[in-house]
Amino acid sequence: MTSHSTLTGREIRLAARPVGEPALTDFALAEAPVPQPRDGQILVRNTWMSVDPYMRGRMNDVPSPVLPPFKLGAPLEGSAVGEVIASRSADVPVGATVSHFLGWRDYAVLDAAAATVVDTALAPVQAYLGALGATGLTAYAALTDVAPVHEGDVVFVSAAAGAVGGVAGQLARKLGAAKVIGSAGGPEKTGKLLADFGFDAALDHRAGPIAAQLADAAPDGIDVYLDSVGGDHLEAAIDALNVGGRAALVGAISGYNATAPVPGPANLVQIVYKQLTLRGMQVGAYLHLFPEYIAKAAGWLADGTLHTEETVYDGLDRAPAALLGNLRGANTGKTLVRL
Amino acid sequence: MTSHSTLTGREIRLAARPVGEPALTDFALAEAPVPQPRDGQILVRNTWMSVDPYMRGRMNDVPSPVLPPFKLGAPLEGSAVGEVIASRSADVPVGATVSHFLGWRDYAVLDAAAATVVDTALAPVQAYLGALGATGLTAYAALTDVAPVHEGDVVFVSAAAGAVGGVAGQLARKLGAAKVIGSAGGPEKTGKLLADFGFDAALDHRAGPIAAQLADAAPDGIDVYLDSVGGDHLEAAIDALNVGGRAALVGAISGYNATAPVPGPANLVQIVYKQLTLRGMQVGAYLHLFPEYIAKAAGWLADGTLHTEETVYDGLDRAPAALLGNLRGANTGKTLVRL
Repeated sequence: MTSHSTLTGREIRLAARPVGEPALTDFALAEAPVPQPRDGQILVRNTWMSVDPYMRGRMNDVPSPVLPPFKLGAPLEGSAVGEVIASRSADVPVGATVSHFLGWRDYAVLDAAAATVVDTALAPVQAYLGALGATGLTAYAALTDVAPVHEGDVVFVSAAAGAVGGVAGQLARKLGAAKVIGSAGGPEKTGKLLADFGFDAALDHRAGPIAAQLADAAPDGIDVYLDSVGGDHLEAAIDALNVGGRAALVGAISGYNATAPVPGPANLVQIVYKQLTLRGMQVGAYLHLFPEYIAKAAGWLADGTLHTEETVYDGLDRAPAALLGNLRGANTGKTLVRL
Repeated sequence: MTSHSTLTGREIRLAARPVGEPALTDFALAEAPVPQPRDGQILVRNTWMSVDPYMRGRMNDVPSPVLPPFKLGAPLEGSAVGEVIASRSADVPVGATVSHFLGWRDYAVLDAAAATVVDTALAPVQAYLGALGATGLTAYAALTDVAPVHEGDVVFVSAAAGAVGGVAGQLARKLGAAKVIGSAGGPEKTGKLLADFGFDAALDHRAGPIAAQLADAAPDGIDVYLDSVGGDHLEAAIDALNVGGRAALVGAISGYNATAPVPGPANLVQIVYKQLTLRGMQVGAYLHLFPEYIAKAAGWLADGTLHTEETVYDGLDRAPAALLGNLRGANTGKTLVRL
């Protein structure tokens, strides 16, 4: 291995817990010495990092067995890819490109077992944070296992111009959906849903109540709903779901910035009447599906049948702005930071 | 067959759609000529009928593909048992005891295929409306299929002194639950939960917030929740459910009398974080489990390991009072009307 004893790296720390919408002042860019990798560890120079809405939840001080809060004063975490520049593991050599969960910093030191070597011949490296990463796998697990799409189903995808939603809409079609409906904020995004992401109908949640738009777009109801939003979207979907309908809950962006408890849908009794299933998921429970999924999705990227978009921010210092933009709905497709 | 051309029967009709809590004046007792059974039909003299909270929902004029509203001026419907006094079906002879869905009346004329002949040697006939009927099957399907109980689980049952809940608590134990917690209204019922229904802990929802009581009773969380209540109970259960937890939603009595939309739990994002499954059920989807269930439950009734209670109202004219008592939480165990 090469010695990097004098290496110093930048990292983004949580400076303050936001109340409501986060501000740039809730983050702090700092420099810190990079530790030497110990036996079994690798040192990675991060090249891309992922920014995702769920990170807002980890900025709150709410205990969670699955997604513990970020620590005040410590660097944030999240998916990233990079190049291995030092290795004390026989499994991961210097020069390999890996994905891992220590983003928000220039250099990451981690156990080799916590990194996944990715094949840069299959797709551009940053695809492993998006369509070939946790984002794509979330859509895949949601629509094949959590709320499986059957031949002929009508499927509704929220946040459909986002990283998960954009993949999910196209995946629903590949799984046999007869009609795929997406929601997004503003005419630019809804235009993209129809023109680029292959949706049959696009609802603009800024243009009016989503329930009425969904009822219009799906006069015979929906069978599957992919929820990244919660709130009015979830209520509208519960109204629209047919008997035996299924909802995969992968996020609840409508509530992430709430400063007081936000009441849930008033129509939950419909879950009983219509024998609905609402199921929450964390992609971490589906990592065993990664090889199967990547094999399929890399083919779809290569043959052009899976359209993806990226919103790229340049420089680690722009990562907080990237998250704020993502939470405001300002970005399309996968939000990435190029380091 | 015997001719009954001059037979007249009493029936309870929906006189008005209630707003909020139903009143006795929303029901009307009327007499009507009993039609002759046609080919393939039977004429049943009802001896017992079931009264269940879900019937309140059918008194509202809300379209439903599964539970359509009762019609104004027409007799109500619901589970009943009785004796076949005329038959034009080779399958169901005069003298048989049958269960069916045309309660709220002295005499029912129905297709023989819509009736089930019951074995009165196994258990008292009214048991086929309770522990051996849709009530017991609801508990069984909920805890074996909808939200399956695994060995060692902590299980929380709402409305635990009610018809479904009383069976469910004991069933959870038989399925291997390590701890079974029930909620009911008032000290008399919670006393029964501990003394007679075999619960390990009993929460009195009239004595204080259910969330705090549940947290005390289940310091390590719960794994399965049977929801007949909705509202505060569902919110408390979502807070208490462990990662991968399961909730079977079989009713929502807290909202049945609501005159305006009642907001749902404010903590639905926990469904995502903890990968919870909320699944609604209608017992009609599980009728195929009836033979398997009755075989087991009749054994438990015979060997005394399944404790049941009944609250009996005498006379068809008392059926509205029986439903009102049931909705107010005044009754314990199965609410029945003896005709």
